[in-house]
Amino acid sequence: MSGRGVHLDPGQRRDWLRLIRSENVGPRAFRSLINRFGGARAALEALPALARRGGRLIPPHIPSIAEAEAEMEALARLGGRFIALGEPEYPVLLREIDDPPPLLAVRGRNDVLLQPTVAIVGSRNASGAGRTMTLRLARGLGAAGWVVASGLARGIDAAAHEASLSTGTIAVIAGGHDRPYPRENEPLLERIASEGAVLSEMPMGWEPRARDFPRRNRIVSGLSLGVVVVEAAERSGSLITARLAAEQGREVFAVPGSPLDPRAGGTNALIKQGAALVTGTEDVLEVLASLRDRPSRLDMEEAADEGMDAPEPSEDARGRVLGLLGPVPMPVDDIVVLSGAGVAEVQVLLLELELAGRLERHVNGTVSLGF
Amino acid sequence: MSGRGVHLDPGQRRDWLRLIRSENVGPRAFRSLINRFGGARAALEALPALARRGGRLIPPHIPSIAEAEAEMEALARLGGRFIALGEPEYPVLLREIDDPPPLLAVRGRNDVLLQPTVAIVGSRNASGAGRTMTLRLARGLGAAGWVVASGLARGIDAAAHEASLSTGTIAVIAGGHDRPYPRENEPLLERIASEGAVLSEMPMGWEPRARDFPRRNRIVSGLSLGVVVVEAAERSGSLITARLAAEQGREVFAVPGSPLDPRAGGTNALIKQGAALVTGTEDVLEVLASLRDRPSRLDMEEAADEGMDAPEPSEDARGRVLGLLGPVPMPVDDIVVLSGAGVAEVQVLLLELELAGRLERHVNGTVSLGF
Repeated sequence: MSGRGVHLDPGQRRDWLRLIRSENVGPRAFRSLINRFGGARAALEALPALARRGGRLIPPHIPSIAEAEAEMEALARLGGRFIALGEPEYPVLLREIDDPPPLLAVRGRNDVLLQPTVAIVGSRNASGAGRTMTLRLARGLGAAGWVVASGLARGIDAAAHEASLSTGTIAVIAGGHDRPYPRENEPLLERIASEGAVLSEMPMGWEPRARDFPRRNRIVSGLSLGVVVVEAAERSGSLITARLAAEQGREVFAVPGSPLDPRAGGTNALIKQGAALVTGTEDVLEVLASLRDRPSRLDMEEAADEGMDAPEPSEDARGRVLGLLGPVPMPVDDIVVLSGAGVAEVQVLLLELELAGRLERHVNGTVSLGF
Repeated sequence: MSGRGVHLDPGQRRDWLRLIRSENVGPRAFRSLINRFGGARAALEALPALARRGGRLIPPHIPSIAEAEAEMEALARLGGRFIALGEPEYPVLLREIDDPPPLLAVRGRNDVLLQPTVAIVGSRNASGAGRTMTLRLARGLGAAGWVVASGLARGIDAAAHEASLSTGTIAVIAGGHDRPYPRENEPLLERIASEGAVLSEMPMGWEPRARDFPRRNRIVSGLSLGVVVVEAAERSGSLITARLAAEQGREVFAVPGSPLDPRAGGTNALIKQGAALVTGTEDVLEVLASLRDRPSRLDMEEAADEGMDAPEPSEDARGRVLGLLGPVPMPVDDIVVLSGAGVAEVQVLLLELELAGRLERHVNGTVSLGF
């Protein structure tokens, strides 16, 4: 797992930042725009017209060059920098997910980002046993050469970071780098920022909201070849991470517990659904060792990417796609089949709707009309 | 699951008891002898000659008619009777295992023997949580119409019986009916003998030894469509039951626990090996419901049984089979292949060696030379 790719020049990097910080531009729209227009600069120019075609009346906000530079400077003051998708420092596995962040704001060391990584996550109100298991697993995996990723939450996450500080740890946060959360983990965060790495895809100044945590969790699992859930109640955030991980093709591991312990309800359920049962580091290492050297998905699919020469969608296709969309999330594949329009055509139409702020993309790849 | 078969007449029953209580006659040898000679009487007559051909110098002990009648009377004084393999009262699933007891000494009610049965087993030094889970599962399975089988041991076994007394429970004991073990469970045993059923394949007066427990456990699992292991340390007797159950084609279920709890070491290992993870009654019922009405193995295989017209083995084949046998247990199939002799011929040669006290049969179907 060595870095590949080329660096953006300073102007490109600033344009990338302006584009991903533009109103209604998420990671998927960013990728579509870059693919369609060949670069961030051209995409920024096309943005207002696309949004208008999608039904937007007021032009979407696009940050100025000065605003982008201010964010880069604020990050630099915390010792951070942006790493762009496609640059050699960008985590290899994270490139492969459906919606990789185009820019990662990174504090800390680059080298941990390029080592084989495993995530350890779990409940915030962890038991003593859960914390002990976390320490054992994080130490064991660290000793075996694995970087441990987690979400800096209380409980399991914090224990996982602490136990892997000396061997390599990555914290992914749900807000901006200048908005640490939870506050009680700030001293730990600062240690990770000097000994490991702290990542965020969110703008400086961004206070994390509830919906940002699942979004953050897709990065935790996306960085990692596998996700170990140590303790989790049923219907908990850790289970969302596990589901996202499975959807990303990541291996899911879970530590079992007594059925009488509610903190094991989620992990036992995961094992029932097919997660590998973990009682010690070896259980994780055995599975991961067999995956570590598999060919990257990117290597196989890079050539199949949609070109930038997608046709202008017809008004007829636009009507059919709009007719299919509603408040209920729907897989994009189904929209293609049911509309009878081409894949590229549907992608452009969805992009326009998204830029107009009318389309909502969900973490599982479905879309819905958002008004 | 209704009873089938015909009853033995009193003389046959007595001869069956004499044959199964004869020296070196276990359940497998019993079946071979009946198949070969057409009945227990003829087998008893042939026994001394067979043992001689197997290399036995002193004739094996065969109980007299008086001895057999004395055992039947002793059992009757405890309110018990013998049920023979093939009689309608004999538990349907137990007929299907490789080495069903030809005679079961039964105290208690016949009806529980013919109902769908599930086993619940586990460690003797059970935790409070383990006992609570056992009560929940036994009550839940009982309420759903399942009879609960177990081994009357301390801890999980006793809790399983207690919770299922009113809905139907079967205790299988490793010694004779007049040698209750453990003594502390005698009051429970007596309640089971009046409200449920107590089974033994061992003679009256038999004190259970360590090696009798795995033998007993094959009956617990053999009676049952599935075996639920609630708590078990690694390398425990409950794991042997689980292995036997899997070999018998029974469903294996295990209740998970914290990896830090040694009493969950065995159950977690079972789940790793493919046992179904159980957190509540529903997990067991779902799987069992799908198996409950499957066709019996006997229905399909009865016709394929070895006939009684097996040829006399040649001295040449005897030499080759003996040459292959040693102190290391070996699958019978391998002996057939490597000796180049016929299956029936090998069976007869092994039977002779067994009756001579030279062959040891192991619970997994392998054989070794025992001197």
